[in-house]
Amino acid sequence: MVRMETVIGVDVGGTKVAAAVVGGGALAARVEHPTELGDGAALLDGIAAVVAEVEQGTARAAVVGVGLPSQIDFSSGTVVASANIPLQGVPVREELQRRLGRPVFVDNDANCAALAEAGLGGVDDLVMLTLGTGVGGGVVIDGQIFRGSSGLGAELGHIVIERDGPECPGACPSRGCLEAFCSGTALARDALAYAEAHPDSQLGRELAQEGRVSGRVATEAAQDGDPDALALLQQLGVSLGVGMAGLINIFEPQRLVIGGGLSAAGDLFMPQAISEAESRALPALYERVTIGLARGGADAGIIGAGTLAAHEFQRSNRGEG
Amino acid sequence: MVRMETVIGVDVGGTKVAAAVVGGGALAARVEHPTELGDGAALLDGIAAVVAEVEQGTARAAVVGVGLPSQIDFSSGTVVASANIPLQGVPVREELQRRLGRPVFVDNDANCAALAEAGLGGVDDLVMLTLGTGVGGGVVIDGQIFRGSSGLGAELGHIVIERDGPECPGACPSRGCLEAFCSGTALARDALAYAEAHPDSQLGRELAQEGRVSGRVATEAAQDGDPDALALLQQLGVSLGVGMAGLINIFEPQRLVIGGGLSAAGDLFMPQAISEAESRALPALYERVTIGLARGGADAGIIGAGTLAAHEFQRSNRGEG
Repeated sequence: MVRMETVIGVDVGGTKVAAAVVGGGALAARVEHPTELGDGAALLDGIAAVVAEVEQGTARAAVVGVGLPSQIDFSSGTVVASANIPLQGVPVREELQRRLGRPVFVDNDANCAALAEAGLGGVDDLVMLTLGTGVGGGVVIDGQIFRGSSGLGAELGHIVIERDGPECPGACPSRGCLEAFCSGTALARDALAYAEAHPDSQLGRELAQEGRVSGRVATEAAQDGDPDALALLQQLGVSLGVGMAGLINIFEPQRLVIGGGLSAAGDLFMPQAISEAESRALPALYERVTIGLARGGADAGIIGAGTLAAHEFQRSNRGEG
Repeated sequence: MVRMETVIGVDVGGTKVAAAVVGGGALAARVEHPTELGDGAALLDGIAAVVAEVEQGTARAAVVGVGLPSQIDFSSGTVVASANIPLQGVPVREELQRRLGRPVFVDNDANCAALAEAGLGGVDDLVMLTLGTGVGGGVVIDGQIFRGSSGLGAELGHIVIERDGPECPGACPSRGCLEAFCSGTALARDALAYAEAHPDSQLGRELAQEGRVSGRVATEAAQDGDPDALALLQQLGVSLGVGMAGLINIFEPQRLVIGGGLSAAGDLFMPQAISEAESRALPALYERVTIGLARGGADAGIIGAGTLAAHEFQRSNRGEG
């Protein structure tokens, strides 16, 4: 019986860094600060400072897990590509191990969240889509994070659903991929276009008053009953459903969950997403999947990063790592 | 050291059943007969007869592996869905074990072919697309066939690349999926439409003379230098590339191969497919994959079915099965 060490999970986003002690699915000593976006060193120092703050008054954690919104070479813990935080090319695992003086494991934030959701959902095979600034993906197969041959895989936001669709707003050369339709960035683009074309609409008045229309504004307008904003969210849901059907056909997961910031407004678009997925997925596969919103909510990234670190730490102590 | 038993691999297609003794990547005593499409019992009897014919003059095989163009529940060996052969709902593994009096393992033909290609390519992580009457998929992760949570996954032909595209010609309720653009059925549809719209073209004259235009006729015309037919194949290649990019982003495979009957004309469409995939896949992932035609050719299905049976038979003898 391995004693369960204290583990800290860190979820690094484009706007904030959140961390907590993770144990048995519950969080303790949660801390959150704005993300230091100045440069890589400042961001790494900021992550180390958040870990130190979590540890004030609790036992020192034996291992730290970090989820980043980036493509990561998992074995080395180096960021291969990163659009929203200044860590491109940085060996984050090595840098943080030096700063923190203990083992650190680093993975894509969507991978971490997917691992948390599989645990919360009680399944071994799960696909998760994370709708935030971009669209991230996480896949759990037989209880393990699936990463591709060298840790860069499961980029589920970059499957094309409309080959001639809009350019992907992320660090992706394609067009018409899921991220080009279902990300917060895509929603903001569509809301702005609608506002410009319909100055008398609620979104149009928002644009005239504020000089901009964000995805958040569109979501809030839809929640307040604006039919135009609601239509944009429903349209996002239909696009999401097209992608979901493909992922069901590919992975035949037991469960498919939608997380990320936009999932807080999931009641506005999930009925359309589920209906579209049902109409397109192979029936024998659709029958076997449950679909829902992520249960871990905003903390799934922290829980997953901690769970990952605990798994990997135990593996390395058993000599498998 | 486990003694390598004699293994027979059987590849069941919509038009023919081919079987051989499989050992070390080489085939012996290869036999091929038309597929009995009358009913399930006749087809099962036909498969058993082909196995018996292979065994004339060779040692009795200890185990038989069978690849079918169907969705299969691998653990039970039951066909869940099958468009082109009359085995829907049939417990093929059980039926063939009774007929053959020995262990039989049954899997999707594309899964079998992918396993063969991973072995031939010397990689552990591979994605294979099989372009035939439909578009099948096979995925190998860490040297193992990936099947989804209950054996129905890896339906790679049913990811959407154009949400409002043509209806899928297969047993799939969607439209605009890879099978709707890159299958032999889709090629025949496009060739017919072209011939009808251009009666003075080579394809148009073929239609007037023969009353029909098949995918095979279009492929042969393209190979003979007809620019219109060639354009159809190149267009198929571009569609294929859109799907390939998505699969590279999802699986980050070491190798991606294209097999199936249409791959015999791969020189006509693979340059377009590769160029499109390169322009759309995430660069860091594209750099790490090699793309090519299946090396096993028409025999990959037999080799894979035999390899699968050998693996599973050894597993069950070790008490893992």
